[in-house]
Amino acid sequence: MNDTIMSKTDAAARVVAARLRRGLSWSEIAEEIGSPLVWTTSALLGQHPMTQEQSEQVCRLLDLDDAVAESLRAQPSRGTDQATMTDPTIYRFVEALAVYGPALKELIHDEFGDGIMSAINFRVDFARHPDPAGDRVVVTFDGKFLDYRW
Amino acid sequence: MNDTIMSKTDAAARVVAARLRRGLSWSEIAEEIGSPLVWTTSALLGQHPMTQEQSEQVCRLLDLDDAVAESLRAQPSRGTDQATMTDPTIYRFVEALAVYGPALKELIHDEFGDGIMSAINFRVDFARHPDPAGDRVVVTFDGKFLDYRW
Amino acid sequence: MNDTIMSKTDAAARVVAARLRRGLSWSEIAEEIGSPLVWTTSALLGQHPMTQEQSEQVCRLLDLDDAVAESLRAQPSRGTDQATMTDPTIYRFVEALAVYGPALKELIHDEFGDGIMSAINFRVDFARHPDPAGDRVVVTFDGKFLDYRW
Amino acid sequence: MNDTIMSKTDAAARVVAARLRRGLSWSEIAEEIGSPLVWTTSALLGQHPMTQEQSEQVCRLLDLDDAVAESLRAQPSRGTDQATMTDPTIYRFVEALAVYGPALKELIHDEFGDGIMSAINFRVDFARHPDPAGDRVVVTFDGKFLDYRW
Amino acid sequence: MNDTIMSKTDAAARVVAARLRRGLSWSEIAEEIGSPLVWTTSALLGQHPMTQEQSEQVCRLLDLDDAVAESLRAQPSRGTDQATMTDPTIYRFVEALAVYGPALKELIHDEFGDGIMSAINFRVDFARHPDPAGDRVVVTFDGKFLDYRW
Amino acid sequence: MNDTIMSKTDAAARVVAARLRRGLSWSEIAEEIGSPLVWTTSALLGQHPMTQEQSEQVCRLLDLDDAVAESLRAQPSRGTDQATMTDPTIYRFVEALAVYGPALKELIHDEFGDGIMSAINFRVDFARHPDPAGDRVVVTFDGKFLDYRW
Amino acid sequence: MNDTIMSKTDAAARVVAARLRRGLSWSEIAEEIGSPLVWTTSALLGQHPMTQEQSEQVCRLLDLDDAVAESLRAQPSRGTDQATMTDPTIYRFVEALAVYGPALKELIHDEFGDGIMSAINFRVDFARHPDPAGDRVVVTFDGKFLDYRW
Amino acid sequence: MNDTIMSKTDAAARVVAARLRRGLSWSEIAEEIGSPLVWTTSALLGQHPMTQEQSEQVCRLLDLDDAVAESLRAQPSRGTDQATMTDPTIYRFVEALAVYGPALKELIHDEFGDGIMSAINFRVDFARHPDPAGDRVVVTFDGKFLDYRW
Amino acid sequence: MNDTIMSKTDAAARVVAARLRRGLSWSEIAEEIGSPLVWTTSALLGQHPMTQEQSEQVCRLLDLDDAVAESLRAQPSRGTDQATMTDPTIYRFVEALAVYGPALKELIHDEFGDGIMSAINFRVDFARHPDPAGDRVVVTFDGKFLDYRW
Amino acid sequence: MNDTIMSKTDAAARVVAARLRRGLSWSEIAEEIGSPLVWTTSALLGQHPMTQEQSEQVCRLLDLDDAVAESLRAQPSRGTDQATMTDPTIYRFVEALAVYGPALKELIHDEFGDGIMSAINFRVDFARHPDPAGDRVVVTFDGKFLDYRW
Repeated sequence: MNDTIMSKTDAAARVVAARLRRGLSWSEIAEEIGSPLVWTTSALLGQHPMTQEQSEQVCRLLDLDDAVAESLRAQPSRGTDQATMTDPTIYRFVEALAVYGPALKELIHDEFGDGIMSAINFRVDFARHPDPAGDRVVVTFDGKFLDYRW
Repeated sequence: MNDTIMSKTDAAARVVAARLRRGLSWSEIAEEIGSPLVWTTSALLGQHPMTQEQSEQVCRLLDLDDAVAESLRAQPSRGTDQATMTDPTIYRFVEALAVYGPALKELIHDEFGDGIMSAINFRVDFARHPDPAGDRVVVTFDGKFLDYRW
Repeated sequence: MNDTIMSKTDAAARVVAARLRRGLSWSEIAEEIGSPLVWTTSALLGQHPMTQEQSEQVCRLLDLDDAVAESLRAQPSRGTDQATMTDPTIYRFVEALAVYGPALKELIHDEFGDGIMSAINFRVDFARHPDPAGDRVVVTFDGKFLDYRW
Repeated sequence: MNDTIMSKTDAAARVVAARLRRGLSWSEIAEEIGSPLVWTTSALLGQHPMTQEQSEQVCRLLDLDDAVAESLRAQPSRGTDQATMTDPTIYRFVEALAVYGPALKELIHDEFGDGIMSAINFRVDFARHPDPAGDRVVVTFDGKFLDYRW
Repeated sequence: MNDTIMSKTDAAARVVAARLRRGLSWSEIAEEIGSPLVWTTSALLGQHPMTQEQSEQVCRLLDLDDAVAESLRAQPSRGTDQATMTDPTIYRFVEALAVYGPALKELIHDEFGDGIMSAINFRVDFARHPDPAGDRVVVTFDGKFLDYRW
Repeated sequence: MNDTIMSKTDAAARVVAARLRRGLSWSEIAEEIGSPLVWTTSALLGQHPMTQEQSEQVCRLLDLDDAVAESLRAQPSRGTDQATMTDPTIYRFVEALAVYGPALKELIHDEFGDGIMSAINFRVDFARHPDPAGDRVVVTFDGKFLDYRW
Repeated sequence: MNDTIMSKTDAAARVVAARLRRGLSWSEIAEEIGSPLVWTTSALLGQHPMTQEQSEQVCRLLDLDDAVAESLRAQPSRGTDQATMTDPTIYRFVEALAVYGPALKELIHDEFGDGIMSAINFRVDFARHPDPAGDRVVVTFDGKFLDYRW
Repeated sequence: MNDTIMSKTDAAARVVAARLRRGLSWSEIAEEIGSPLVWTTSALLGQHPMTQEQSEQVCRLLDLDDAVAESLRAQPSRGTDQATMTDPTIYRFVEALAVYGPALKELIHDEFGDGIMSAINFRVDFARHPDPAGDRVVVTFDGKFLDYRW
Repeated sequence: MNDTIMSKTDAAARVVAARLRRGLSWSEIAEEIGSPLVWTTSALLGQHPMTQEQSEQVCRLLDLDDAVAESLRAQPSRGTDQATMTDPTIYRFVEALAVYGPALKELIHDEFGDGIMSAINFRVDFARHPDPAGDRVVVTFDGKFLDYRW
Repeated sequence: MNDTIMSKTDAAARVVAARLRRGLSWSEIAEEIGSPLVWTTSALLGQHPMTQEQSEQVCRLLDLDDAVAESLRAQPSRGTDQATMTDPTIYRFVEALAVYGPALKELIHDEFGDGIMSAINFRVDFARHPDPAGDRVVVTFDGKFLDYRW
């Protein structure tokens, strides 16, 4: 048999369509598989490999077939094309880094010394904070400090 | 008189040199002018205009002359060149966006509807969280949700 | 079921073909759904999500099937590829920004202080102004001022 | 004599510094030389050549010497570098074009036929519109329609 | 019905194939529809919309079906991808602009004042000039001068 | 002696300044040295090497010293940076090539066979054609046809 | 017969799918064909041509048909697209070169003289080194020194 | 005092010149400060901050003044410009990654699971291996495996 | 009939497959059609148009059908995408130009005056030169000198 | 002493100026130092390090001081910026590679197997071949074949 594995992009498109047609929120899906919200959303969009069990739970919930589940388990090549990064909703984060990135670097070095925030031993939280002047999007990047160590 | 205003880059270089030579941390400077830590660091690196008073307090503290203070008050052209964005300490944030950006977009639309997190009505917090497995860098992006409104 | 949602690009191509074949103007379509002209055109080209009702009205008017309507309701990833931005009709706006962008920045800061014109709380009007020396294209960008507010 | 003409960039930096130090607004300068606001600001930033009289009025007002005036009269090479175009205040206009550019193209062709809005026979107006929900930046692009004519 | 309009690229590929197989020159086609040579060639390659009559004449002459004719009438998004611009036959024009562009700018400003040669109210002629030292390609760009006029 | 030759850019800046201060047109300079208008302008902007005599005539006319003359005689590295190519006056030529380039390629091959218009055995003419509807900029590219010949 | 050879990308996708479905490691495959681990993995991903025997062994092991084997034997066009190079697992190597590349150049010249490490007469080893503080990825680049020799 | 810190680039140029003029090898310098060879070379080229003691030892050895030492201690912005990365000696490493990068990714995931080789908890060794067929450059990348851990 | 001409890329892929399956060398094919080796290879890869007779001879030899022959006769758009130019075998030529290009320019001007080597009246020879230290690839570029001639 | 080594660019500019002012050809210089023509030109333009003796001979011949000689001996970072590569005299070589590069790759693999022409064990010859139809520039690339050898 010469078949290939369905691409992560195709699997994500099927997940997104099924989610909308069933009227499920991302947090309902995350709850179903018992995984963190941002991780789950990101994995279903193709940025993390799922376990056998996670992939099967999602496909059962969304009534997707085995080819999608197999794709969700595959090791991804991570990243997002530049065109998508300029979508306004994503771009505001890019702009924030362009404005605050050098300050964050200074503060990391000042507080921790020479090193980085890991993007691997790392989690992202997403929350809505009610505010009378307009609710707020609150996103937390939380990564282990890694010092340059020879 | 035909003099120009000192560039923000030159002013920042003078601030950075004076800070190091005096052994002051960014948070000591922020405290001195009574402004938030990330905001102050970012402003001193040239990304925000300071008030008359803030610029004078900083220059007094760091023994910098009036030309620096004037530059710190000027309206910036914000942003960071691409070469700096690939410094490893900053790049981890860029990479995190490449991995989690589309998920954050999905979650914002799912929770709030069509719109964005403002990068203007916005604050960034920086903290060190102690952790027995290695302390963590915790950076919070907190922006007002703005819905697409015609 | 494993079907995906029709892409916004494909839906727009179907809308454009049906519009031409029926000889309808964009303003006749906008009127039909009771929405502003530029918003409606932009939404049908894939830059804004439509409501259930709007998508159904348009598809009824243009005799397009449900897959198109579903695509018109989906959340877009906004933006336009660079090749399209150099089409001469669009490029004149790009050129105008290259010539007047820094002046608009100076004037916004001079009049309002440090901040931006929102591109989200924002509307665009398009009009034809009769002029004996040749009618004029008049495009108005109207966005809420947002001040940098920590 | 082998001297060159002061660059437009250097002249603009001197104009900007003198304006700030004298506390003059761009509209006060525009009024002084009796020219439209956006045109004047843009010309002083190096995007339009001034007349002998305009250049002398400005330099008298701002106490700048003849080398600046000569530069202000010189024919510019127009445009703005990409780094400046991503400053948030300017970028919102760029983003608006990425979202609405193709719609404006459709509307121009639908209303006027095959052609463009001139960026040469063209004016830009800038206004602040009071609004209880927050004042608005209103920028109008007004260019003569030019049809493709062989 | 959900059909889209055939792309200009596809229509051009069909025109080019039919032209070669019938052994027709571009000037024979231009003559058939009574339009200028460069305009006709350019329109058939997808850069100008044709009238109902022109599109039908061409498709009759080349035995192409209505889908091609409809595409030829559609409003184009104009421009050529960079890869094609480096084909040696086209690149020589690009190189000539890189060498003579700044001189043409100087001469336009010196002769006409501040403004441009229109690329819209514009025609291009193509001719072969016999020359004993080798015949010459003679291409004339002829556009209306437009002065910067506020 | 370790001196270098003045750069073509610096020499051009001195020529341009002297020309403006003396109120000479490019055609008066071309006439003075008995060379074609576009060639002379282009050479003085740094795109062609001048002869000893030409360089001395120009420097005498414009009262420029020997270092400029030496630079004008030097072999150039030809071309123009991209930023300059987007100046509106030059860009219209670039845009015309993007629209008509593929048509010119078709016509060259149709009329002459496989080959190119030389950009080396080549001349450019610049003229103003009076026209009651607005005078016209007429630029003629005239190059020897070179066939691909192994 | 007009058939083409299956692309290396398609062949690699089939190899990857078959490997995962059979639960084989890359080293088991490498062992099977008696070739070095990194070479084999790289060849199966399309970066090296295999011999007749190697290609047949692999396809027998993975139950892939002759079209895949033929593709594996074909001469590749080597390299990896930029998007893949920013996958975090690959990017760390890219970053290491950005940090240590100039140092490696200095050391090669200091130790060997003017020349390079060959990337052709070259092998790469991959190993896991156990370490109580966390196992380590150890990758060795081993290439023949080639001196610049006229 | 308004002085800035000498740039890492300037400090490196001074180190390189002094090293050559004194005829010292990089390994003699590394030995002097008791640090690993690649680390030391890289630090002196501006990619790592040195300790007070290391910077003073180096400057004593090379007879460089305090401004250089201060620069060597400063926190770097790491990375190398693209032009330098295409120097043939460095480019061979870049090419090797383009050929073997995807294979290394497969092997890391196959052996360790989903994660990366750290480029921070990381060391590089450089060695010359004698070989009768021509000595070999052997460079070892040795980084701690980091698994994606939420 | 609405058929298009097979693309040069598709034709080349069919030629390459047939060549390999028949075990023919490029020089056997060149000999068959009595044309120079590099020219023939290049033409079959899509960079030169073939004559009716050449295209038929090749297709007879390789048992390819008329659609391939027609494509081989068509006028190409010449050039190679950047990804292919970084294949190591091709890249060495690119690198050689980066190292020796400016020297070749100096030598052409020194020996011939201001002008270029034609890439149109041009031939390339490819040869293998036996050498006890390792056989050599010898590629000769041979083009007519063209002087800048107005 | 904190002095740096004169950059290769500055040294080359001094060599070029001195060569022109003394009226020496590149081959006279090459002869003086007894080195091949293209190598010598390239080395003096900054692409190869010279020996002590070569650098001193050149500086004596051209009356350049020791700082230039020291720079000529330094290890270069090789390569040429993109702007220079589009100078027409150099670009014709670039274009030739874009047209013939893939053919040369095919021929190298067909004749030698999988491998490359070395650009390090490599020489370039430059010659003028008299031809009644116009003299020819003949450039020979001659590099050792290197087979991919693990």
